[in-house]
Amino acid sequence: MRLRNKPWAVKLVNDHPEAVIQDPDPAKKINWEERVADFSRPLEVEIGSGKGQFITTLAKRHPERNYVAIELQTTAAGIILRTKLEEELDNLQILRADAINLADFFDADSIDILYLNFSDPWPKTRHEKRRLTYKSFLKNYQTTLKPEGHLEFKTDNSGLFSYSLVSINNFGAKFDFVSVDLHHEDEEILKNNVETEYEHKFASKGNPIYCLHARFN
Amino acid sequence: MRLRNKPWAVKLVNDHPEAVIQDPDPAKKINWEERVADFSRPLEVEIGSGKGQFITTLAKRHPERNYVAIELQTTAAGIILRTKLEEELDNLQILRADAINLADFFDADSIDILYLNFSDPWPKTRHEKRRLTYKSFLKNYQTTLKPEGHLEFKTDNSGLFSYSLVSINNFGAKFDFVSVDLHHEDEEILKNNVETEYEHKFASKGNPIYCLHARFN
Repeated sequence: MRLRNKPWAVKLVNDHPEAVIQDPDPAKKINWEERVADFSRPLEVEIGSGKGQFITTLAKRHPERNYVAIELQTTAAGIILRTKLEEELDNLQILRADAINLADFFDADSIDILYLNFSDPWPKTRHEKRRLTYKSFLKNYQTTLKPEGHLEFKTDNSGLFSYSLVSINNFGAKFDFVSVDLHHEDEEILKNNVETEYEHKFASKGNPIYCLHARFN
Repeated sequence: MRLRNKPWAVKLVNDHPEAVIQDPDPAKKINWEERVADFSRPLEVEIGSGKGQFITTLAKRHPERNYVAIELQTTAAGIILRTKLEEELDNLQILRADAINLADFFDADSIDILYLNFSDPWPKTRHEKRRLTYKSFLKNYQTTLKPEGHLEFKTDNSGLFSYSLVSINNFGAKFDFVSVDLHHEDEEILKNNVETEYEHKFASKGNPIYCLHARFN
């Protein structure tokens, strides 16, 4: 979702280089150990965090884990940063960059969970390569996830979900969990679900939310 | 779907042993070559045909292929048989038997397409082994399908579909096609879709129809 540009967000992001990494040089590794209190903690990364409701909720709930929100838009990054500062989420870093370079930003076998939430569906066939579940992206997930790590993918877009099931299956990943109607699953599953802004809006209209958890190793 | 018992159906089925195989002995192979005009034609099998709208439509549309409808209920088998006789579908055989013995009824590598349409969802976890996409059934599909053959599965049940995606993926099958909203796919896909009675009823209420095509070899 494209947000209206907000000057305060640009200033906030520029004022906090300790919290936001902007347009990192793919040729240079990011030194995550310098940026978080304890880098040995589990690492969870969301690709395309939007306004950050999902990742900031998780970061607050799990101070014993580290989180990275990847978000290209400066305004969105600024909104996530504002929450991080207000809530004092020391375990959250923001990476303002294109997820296509994921394998340049993280070491191999370093991520415990990768989240894709309500990614752009790119419905036209000629844009298939831009979908975050296209095989070139999956290769990067496989590389950066720990052997015991996994991907968690949610969307309300039936076309993207159908496509992704085929793409992720054909890539050779193993499905741990699928729901084609997440918000009508058992209480046990629902209590662990953290909603994004988008998810809340769509589910409240009665639209189904689709979910897949998959392992690459 | 359980049908009310109809005496005419029992009589019709009993009167036509050339068209209906009843409770075959799993220890004895069925001689399909004796039962169809040309057994070298492609073979397509539906497990749980109900009243047979799907398989009789296909059999009429493709006289150059052979079809077998597996259906345990005598009344349902009788309804399929009535259509077969009325429409003179010489390429359709009816097998009144339990699909659990599939690999006893068909040779290895003999089936081109296996259809599962709106199978009983068996929603309780303790009944998982009865679902037609449980791994013991998948093993039989893998055995009886030709190396280039595939499974086509449709359901309106979100729980069964979610379960089946995990089960069929974990079994190692390769997905060729998935839709979590089949009736809203492109015209190109819809024109090839043959509806079952059940599907027509559910889709017309606006419920999504789920579909998966998968290969086992």
